[in-house]
Amino acid sequence: MGYTIIEKIIRHNTGAQNVKPGDIVTVKADRVMIHDIFIPFVADKFEEMGFKKLWDPDKAVLIYDHLVPASQLDDTRHFRIGDAFAAKYGMKHVHRSDGICHQLMTEAGYVKPGDVVFGTDSHTTTYGCVGAFSSGIGYTEMASILGTGTMWIKVPETIKVVIEGKLPDDVMSKDIILRLIGDLGADGATYLALEFTGSTVEEMSVSSRMTIANMAVEAGAKCALFTPDEKTAEYCEIQLNEFQKSLTGDEDGVYKKVIRYRAEDFVPVMACPSQVDKIKPVSELEGIDIDQVFIGSCTNGRLEDLAAAAEVLKGKKVADYVKLIVTPASRKIYQEAMDQGIMEILSEAGAIITHPGCGLCCGRTGGILSDGERVVATNNRNFLGRMGTSKVEIYLASPKTAAACALAGRIVSAE
Amino acid sequence: MGYTIIEKIIRHNTGAQNVKPGDIVTVKADRVMIHDIFIPFVADKFEEMGFKKLWDPDKAVLIYDHLVPASQLDDTRHFRIGDAFAAKYGMKHVHRSDGICHQLMTEAGYVKPGDVVFGTDSHTTTYGCVGAFSSGIGYTEMASILGTGTMWIKVPETIKVVIEGKLPDDVMSKDIILRLIGDLGADGATYLALEFTGSTVEEMSVSSRMTIANMAVEAGAKCALFTPDEKTAEYCEIQLNEFQKSLTGDEDGVYKKVIRYRAEDFVPVMACPSQVDKIKPVSELEGIDIDQVFIGSCTNGRLEDLAAAAEVLKGKKVADYVKLIVTPASRKIYQEAMDQGIMEILSEAGAIITHPGCGLCCGRTGGILSDGERVVATNNRNFLGRMGTSKVEIYLASPKTAAACALAGRIVSAE
Repeated sequence: MGYTIIEKIIRHNTGAQNVKPGDIVTVKADRVMIHDIFIPFVADKFEEMGFKKLWDPDKAVLIYDHLVPASQLDDTRHFRIGDAFAAKYGMKHVHRSDGICHQLMTEAGYVKPGDVVFGTDSHTTTYGCVGAFSSGIGYTEMASILGTGTMWIKVPETIKVVIEGKLPDDVMSKDIILRLIGDLGADGATYLALEFTGSTVEEMSVSSRMTIANMAVEAGAKCALFTPDEKTAEYCEIQLNEFQKSLTGDEDGVYKKVIRYRAEDFVPVMACPSQVDKIKPVSELEGIDIDQVFIGSCTNGRLEDLAAAAEVLKGKKVADYVKLIVTPASRKIYQEAMDQGIMEILSEAGAIITHPGCGLCCGRTGGILSDGERVVATNNRNFLGRMGTSKVEIYLASPKTAAACALAGRIVSAE
Repeated sequence: MGYTIIEKIIRHNTGAQNVKPGDIVTVKADRVMIHDIFIPFVADKFEEMGFKKLWDPDKAVLIYDHLVPASQLDDTRHFRIGDAFAAKYGMKHVHRSDGICHQLMTEAGYVKPGDVVFGTDSHTTTYGCVGAFSSGIGYTEMASILGTGTMWIKVPETIKVVIEGKLPDDVMSKDIILRLIGDLGADGATYLALEFTGSTVEEMSVSSRMTIANMAVEAGAKCALFTPDEKTAEYCEIQLNEFQKSLTGDEDGVYKKVIRYRAEDFVPVMACPSQVDKIKPVSELEGIDIDQVFIGSCTNGRLEDLAAAAEVLKGKKVADYVKLIVTPASRKIYQEAMDQGIMEILSEAGAIITHPGCGLCCGRTGGILSDGERVVATNNRNFLGRMGTSKVEIYLASPKTAAACALAGRIVSAE
């Protein structure tokens, strides 16, 4: 009998021989992530539950990203509570200004293929890019895991997404996941695993896969999974072991559904205001005036994203009235982008380059918009009010498309 | 009969032969600056006054710096009003994300030695660094100048500050102006011109002079003036004309007071919470724990400031719990600091490098602090509540001292 990737990970984690969708199982957490927004609530709950120590301080990672640097009164309270909690319980992995949690979890080597990982952020699905089962949870659940090292889950059914062929030059992995979300609907994968495979996926960098895994939750997915391969091994700086190598969906695995795409059929798209699944080709939206462009976030703030934007922007200038805000996903990416001259290109084009972190994506600072304004953004959510007032229109797009729009001052296709 | 520098500038500007302190004169503005905070009020008043056109659109500069990128709802309203005003009245000099107004006014060549310049910001005194008479005004006055090109002023008396000798290695020009403000008191130079001269001043870069001129207003000064010299000419990319060369204080000029310092007597100092004139040597404050360090602002966000900080930070790491926020004063400085590897050093040391602009200095975003926290900052004001709650303590210092404190996590002297 064959298995899907998520079933294989759960079998390995629990030691259970038979694992099938719908089973309630208890998994051991290989790693957990808490970010600055939730640490005060996690800390409270943890003590309320009566735990005296963390199940394994080395397996917990605390990351300040949404609030760095603090933009509102009492933001720093989160840091103080986090620092005190980390000190009290002997947590060593604390990142105070290194970048976005999801970027750091993979980039800094906290997550390996086949791991089971939970995080207090909905986009924790991201680590599926390296073949880990990772999912977002609430603070009560996190407090419980910190004490016990375990978590119950219902084994999800899996949708297999097969993509074969070569993507057009103007299409990025962001266009793929936006299209998929559009096809599935925002609730089309609720509590399901999404398994991505096919020659297009094999050709993709881990960073491109990360964009897809990151946004899987926007269709409601419990997790997203890519088979670990040589690219994964290189990214994680490991040799894949037998278990990790086995993480492919079996031919005779049972899938809820198989969705197939031809890579050549993808076109640049946008998620239109104000639903993530309101997907339209960029070509149908051309000419709409914009006020701002945001390139960054755990979805699209990586080196290849900044490089793609720089390629579009090189030697040109952002439209007069448009503010182009660029936020690298991590300190390391920031430094690499400086080394490679990408930051110079972006700055010369007129970009406002901010410190690495969540920045504008969480709508707290760094480009807040007002009534009647429009932004093209590379992050993962265009909900009403996410980046300012409820009368702001957010179009989600790839970095390539976003950069082209910044130059034109309106929605256009990248050349 | 001899004249002070301010008297010479006013004589030249007005054509009057006799100019003495206390005279009310009408001067012609050579350039004016309006920033994002005040443009809505200036625009309103301008139209209320019935003006139909700007006296000279080329002489007005509009700079967005306090609010870029927008951090609060309706911040962008200021941009929209500014953009509309500039378009309606034909203003070409609009900087939407290039850096802090005072930095751009000198760096981008808007101000020349001997000019008369007004700006809607108290730190407009900065342009005295190149021997211009520049001063801050309110929005009603600015609206009036925009219509008429003229402004009344009372000719100020002058205090001459003579500094001779070589500064100790750990002393920067910031320490000089802090010491002077301490000696004069926060109202010690109210409506006076401060004229800086002596071998120490002659040796200083224009950037260092800028720090001094910038903070002159913290002692209440109407303006601060440095004699234009070869450094000024190079900085402004001009040949000094005869008038500009004449801008020294005459031997037989009439001064309200002459203050003399020996450069060797200066020590690193701080302005302690929460008055700019509460000056103490750093050596007397050592050991006080800090939470954050801010290096930036129109006072100390220039290349030499970032370089001085980088020299201290090179190969080291900021203390665990301390956030070091670095904000270059302009896009040009940001790019130069990247080119010179300064940004890499700062980032590797753990700095949070923000987009160029006012940043934390105006207390709207980028490191807001809470009750009981302490920050060492290189900007110009430590007023209660300026960077967070009223229970935040702000210590003003030089970039060198600030960098040393960031490493130690407490107040220390730079080595």
